[in-house]
Amino acid sequence: MSRVEDCHLIEIRSVLDHRGAISIIEAGLDIPFAIKRVYLTYDIPSNATRAGHAHRSLRQLYIAASGAFDVRLDDARALRTVTLRRPDIGLIIGPGIWRELMNFSSNACLVVLASEHYDENDYIRDHAAFRAAVAEGIFD
Amino acid sequence: MSRVEDCHLIEIRSVLDHRGAISIIEAGLDIPFAIKRVYLTYDIPSNATRAGHAHRSLRQLYIAASGAFDVRLDDARALRTVTLRRPDIGLIIGPGIWRELMNFSSNACLVVLASEHYDENDYIRDHAAFRAAVAEGIFD
Repeated sequence: MSRVEDCHLIEIRSVLDHRGAISIIEAGLDIPFAIKRVYLTYDIPSNATRAGHAHRSLRQLYIAASGAFDVRLDDARALRTVTLRRPDIGLIIGPGIWRELMNFSSNACLVVLASEHYDENDYIRDHAAFRAAVAEGIFD
Repeated sequence: MSRVEDCHLIEIRSVLDHRGAISIIEAGLDIPFAIKRVYLTYDIPSNATRAGHAHRSLRQLYIAASGAFDVRLDDARALRTVTLRRPDIGLIIGPGIWRELMNFSSNACLVVLASEHYDENDYIRDHAAFRAAVAEGIFD
């Protein structure tokens, strides 16, 4: 079963010195999946809401590379909102979670590491269809 | 042979709408390698110089997720400086290239997609050893 409680924050391995900071994610080591796709979301108006979909099987790590924003997670039973604001903290989101992004700060940049290549069939873009899928137990 | 001319900028597939921009990199499709490791460099003092090493076999894509900085590329024969300042442009750097990062703007964040897991044996951290390796033709 996919629950909002299963989405979890991870502390990303980081090295800090006088030249700045570096945070490192190795596929299969720091996160339990391969990295087939990476995307960056940026230039987001502060009043915009992004995402609004769920995935059938995709797993993702969300990182605030710059700025801050809220991630609202929805498993069709409960809602949970997580604020991302540091590049050394990531949010793991599994399948069966409806997510919306909002409250973007200026200069926010979201970096997402995704377990699969793009596949439109993996997206559920309609919330009623998402609730129906949860009720049918397809994420159990 | 590894030459600074072989390092090249790529235009990253991007989608822009009223909610902002998204730039997407799929491993093996948009870049000619798997993504085994991702790292983010940030909180960099404007007077800092980072990197200062070459790789024996690692391939990387550098992206300015936020802010701007210069990448100085050195193949032991020629120098070339590339400025990265947009999340929809990436710089591919192959093996046998000494690289230094400098002139960081405030809030700069470099995202690197790397072809291999971390391996200290892949790093050449001494410039004289790098020049010797080039002279020996190990990157040819």
